[in-house]
Amino acid sequence: MLINNKPYKTIWYDKVSDSVKIIDQTKLPFSLKILSLKTLEDVIKAINEMKVRGAPLIGATAAYGIYLAYRNLKNKNKIKEKADMIMNTRPTAFNLFWAVKTMLSKIDNAKNKLEMEKILFNQAEEICKNDIEQCKKIGKNGLDIIKRIHEVKGEVNILTHCNAGWLATIDWGTATAPIYFAKKNDLNLHVWVDETRPRNQGASLTSFELNNERVKNTIITDNTAGLLMQRGKIDLCLVGADRVTKTGHVANKIGTFLKAVIAKEFNIPFYVAIPTNTIDWKAEKYEDIIIEERADNELTHITGLDKYNKINTVKIYPNDSNVYNPSFDITPNKFIKSFITEKGVIDTNYMKLTSLKNE
Amino acid sequence: MLINNKPYKTIWYDKVSDSVKIIDQTKLPFSLKILSLKTLEDVIKAINEMKVRGAPLIGATAAYGIYLAYRNLKNKNKIKEKADMIMNTRPTAFNLFWAVKTMLSKIDNAKNKLEMEKILFNQAEEICKNDIEQCKKIGKNGLDIIKRIHEVKGEVNILTHCNAGWLATIDWGTATAPIYFAKKNDLNLHVWVDETRPRNQGASLTSFELNNERVKNTIITDNTAGLLMQRGKIDLCLVGADRVTKTGHVANKIGTFLKAVIAKEFNIPFYVAIPTNTIDWKAEKYEDIIIEERADNELTHITGLDKYNKINTVKIYPNDSNVYNPSFDITPNKFIKSFITEKGVIDTNYMKLTSLKNE
Repeated sequence: MLINNKPYKTIWYDKVSDSVKIIDQTKLPFSLKILSLKTLEDVIKAINEMKVRGAPLIGATAAYGIYLAYRNLKNKNKIKEKADMIMNTRPTAFNLFWAVKTMLSKIDNAKNKLEMEKILFNQAEEICKNDIEQCKKIGKNGLDIIKRIHEVKGEVNILTHCNAGWLATIDWGTATAPIYFAKKNDLNLHVWVDETRPRNQGASLTSFELNNERVKNTIITDNTAGLLMQRGKIDLCLVGADRVTKTGHVANKIGTFLKAVIAKEFNIPFYVAIPTNTIDWKAEKYEDIIIEERADNELTHITGLDKYNKINTVKIYPNDSNVYNPSFDITPNKFIKSFITEKGVIDTNYMKLTSLKNE
Repeated sequence: MLINNKPYKTIWYDKVSDSVKIIDQTKLPFSLKILSLKTLEDVIKAINEMKVRGAPLIGATAAYGIYLAYRNLKNKNKIKEKADMIMNTRPTAFNLFWAVKTMLSKIDNAKNKLEMEKILFNQAEEICKNDIEQCKKIGKNGLDIIKRIHEVKGEVNILTHCNAGWLATIDWGTATAPIYFAKKNDLNLHVWVDETRPRNQGASLTSFELNNERVKNTIITDNTAGLLMQRGKIDLCLVGADRVTKTGHVANKIGTFLKAVIAKEFNIPFYVAIPTNTIDWKAEKYEDIIIEERADNELTHITGLDKYNKINTVKIYPNDSNVYNPSFDITPNKFIKSFITEKGVIDTNYMKLTSLKNE
């Protein structure tokens, strides 16, 4: 999608530098900085420090990580150990584990090291290509939902939380794909963007990417949706997910749960847009999902542009205050209307979800 | 209550300087700055710029404003015009209107200007004194609720939103009064403090005052309570209010509504602590309450301490993003377990609420 009217993807292999390029998302929206990843260590650092984030993009970056590790080590036995290092970066996003396992499944297929390297490279590229295709299909499937509301009301107001945009995937996004398809279909559309504390991915990434694609949007605090729903200003909610249990419980950015509960109170449909590789077929209950807890300074400090237009970080909390910073919460299946997947719009229902597995 | 181990009130008359003193709450938690108010204009500026905030404290400051206006003008006809200026500062907090009307009701009682000045001064002092007494009674009444949970569990975890602490009143606070009473009764207590975007009064004021009173507390983002409730980490919710309809609907800091709805989902009791002068006996429906909308820069910019320990403001949103910043939301009565008032703990029920009016 577009940044400053130029098309980008979030990750790509660059022949000239023989490296994997990413957009440093910790610098957005203030500067567009492209980083080169050449080693497994580069990849681990990029995921840990959230230079790349969003479940599908974490998966794709991890896939390139396996390729880069093999390219440097040329030793397939060591790769499994390196794979553990990648999988230890972030515990919640399921696509990470899916992508690493997909890569490892190719490890024994080659006649020689050069062929092995090529197979792994092609698999990483394939994961990215498939992700784009899946997001497009999610976009088309979600478009029908938006169209139906548009037919009745002549406009559609969507609430989203965090960033499940193209910046969280390779292109198009999950939750944003239907929005971009609706925009390209000239539907009258407006998006309410939760700022999404503590890291403000809603403000810094979602609003940023919607602005660049000329989709009307308004940033609100995470506190605001109740008032807006009470006033009839939200027609549907649309978010992504980091992991979904086979029973349809959704781990997504902390705060998603609050929005799903209030949406149900107002009978506003709550949709979760995911590629089916976000579904953890072994997870059934809330407890089966590990919720990542991140550093205190994500809450206590915040970064922005000072009056000299320089990136500056300020401490915003009292010195001696304790903080607690879990990154995700789990929205029980009963609050979710449907999953918008590349395989269609699936009602939240164990049997229906399971049918996706075997297709 | 204590700041740096020294007892303070939020507002007091100072004989030496013949002025009304306040704590500049926009500078907390980073510095303790005391301001002098000598004119009506000082008072209006202090309320507008939220140097004082919190419904009871806004009311008390407005009362002193009427006194200062009369002291400077010595003209009771002009006072009514000035009263309108004060009442135009902030539309939602009901105590503001109550306090100004209480002051105006005294305006015709004096024999001469000197006596009039004295009557108004005494009335402003009386409003402050009564507020302290009311908060103490709220504390005692709320203590019983906390005690009952403590008896069963041996500990009590309380969620609060924004600042309905002593900094929002003259002393003790509304929502915090039961907490301070519980602390003085040596109950095993912990408070989860919503940071409360956009102005972060939870982090900057509530956590600050709880730290100073040695009450265990942890700041969380406004997104976090759902996960905590799911994990059984919250026993009750306790907030203040800016205005309550006679039917028991509660206008309070934006985000209160989301917490009340999720609390009901988990059968966690949601209490609203108020002096009864927060009840607007003319308001019945949501629409009867005007919701203040404040400036964009409360969202787009944030202030903290930079690495040189200087107060610095940074812009945290993309340049071209729209924002929307309503300050309050309205929690429907069905989500509120009871009101903790100076007259007792009152179930949320029209008849019972109305009984408070005539006492």
